[in-house]
Amino acid sequence: MDNVIVIGIAGGTGSGKSTLIKKIKENFGDAITVISHDSYYKEQKGMTYEERCQTNYDHPDAFDTDLLVEHVMRLKNWETVEIPVYDFTIHNRAIGETEIVKPSKVVIVEGILIFENQELLDCFDIKVFVDTDADVRIIRRILRDVQERARTLDSVVTQYLTTVKLMHEQFVEPSKKKADIIIPEGGFNVVALEMLNQRIESLLK
Amino acid sequence: MDNVIVIGIAGGTGSGKSTLIKKIKENFGDAITVISHDSYYKEQKGMTYEERCQTNYDHPDAFDTDLLVEHVMRLKNWETVEIPVYDFTIHNRAIGETEIVKPSKVVIVEGILIFENQELLDCFDIKVFVDTDADVRIIRRILRDVQERARTLDSVVTQYLTTVKLMHEQFVEPSKKKADIIIPEGGFNVVALEMLNQRIESLLK
Repeated sequence: MDNVIVIGIAGGTGSGKSTLIKKIKENFGDAITVISHDSYYKEQKGMTYEERCQTNYDHPDAFDTDLLVEHVMRLKNWETVEIPVYDFTIHNRAIGETEIVKPSKVVIVEGILIFENQELLDCFDIKVFVDTDADVRIIRRILRDVQERARTLDSVVTQYLTTVKLMHEQFVEPSKKKADIIIPEGGFNVVALEMLNQRIESLLK
Repeated sequence: MDNVIVIGIAGGTGSGKSTLIKKIKENFGDAITVISHDSYYKEQKGMTYEERCQTNYDHPDAFDTDLLVEHVMRLKNWETVEIPVYDFTIHNRAIGETEIVKPSKVVIVEGILIFENQELLDCFDIKVFVDTDADVRIIRRILRDVQERARTLDSVVTQYLTTVKLMHEQFVEPSKKKADIIIPEGGFNVVALEMLNQRIESLLK
């Protein structure tokens, strides 16, 4: 049985991480598996919607990372896993829903905080950090949240200044130290994308 | 005629740049060409040895970068070039000596300041910056200069604090912004080395 290679792709909000992964996925399709740390947001039992709105979703404690580690270990073992589905509109795990994820030779795990947890770090064969200036990142986040998610500018800015920025500086930025490769600008960086694609292609052979 | 791909590898003193390039060169041998910005230190005509010792060798003005650009353009054109030889023991170009450098499909240009000059930057198809913490870099430089180059600890530290550090912060660190890929720890980073080797291998095919 071939070794499964696990690639971790981390980076702050608006770093270009999702664009990078989207372009990699477009290139390889079902030959690679992509899972998001976001799918592992904890089930918030017994909390009201208002209480759930107050959760700090940029803190490591918001995630069931143990379950993600377990799933990555099983994918490395060529087992199929059922990953949780998170419903962002209700800020809770979609009860009873799961997504079947099949193993493949290359598994990509993505998320802002995936280099923060040592057990998860130990799963990665290649650690990529997408690094983009904070001003560019907040511009991208504002554009996305206001234009695509119909949020008010005020709410985006308040959330950014009260939690996102603090958590980034406390947890995301220091975790860059764990990276093997740092990619400025993420999916907008054609040279780096080509290099990653090349590496994955040779791993798939 | 195949396109020549030019890879620029920059990074501060002690970053692990030379180790990285040495390992790449070991892997590909004569299939790739490596040239150093250091070979293009200016000829210091009419200056005494004492005056030449005072030159700031970490400033862009110390280099004949125009000549390097000309040579890179000619290598891209599959022409052989004669590059200058610099004699570090006398702080001057070795008069009458040159090194014959043959073109190849992949040309690596390395140096601390190669991302600082726009014309040179425009020559690079892939820009790699080797990034290592300043404390680790000065440790490596001290070990190298004291143990291998028989310099006194005092002279290494004085030079570092009076010029190397200032020039790094003024010219090298900002030039990191130009990189397509940032590699922490340079040649000691096995995952990144493997990725670079892979990319070069596919370019050579």
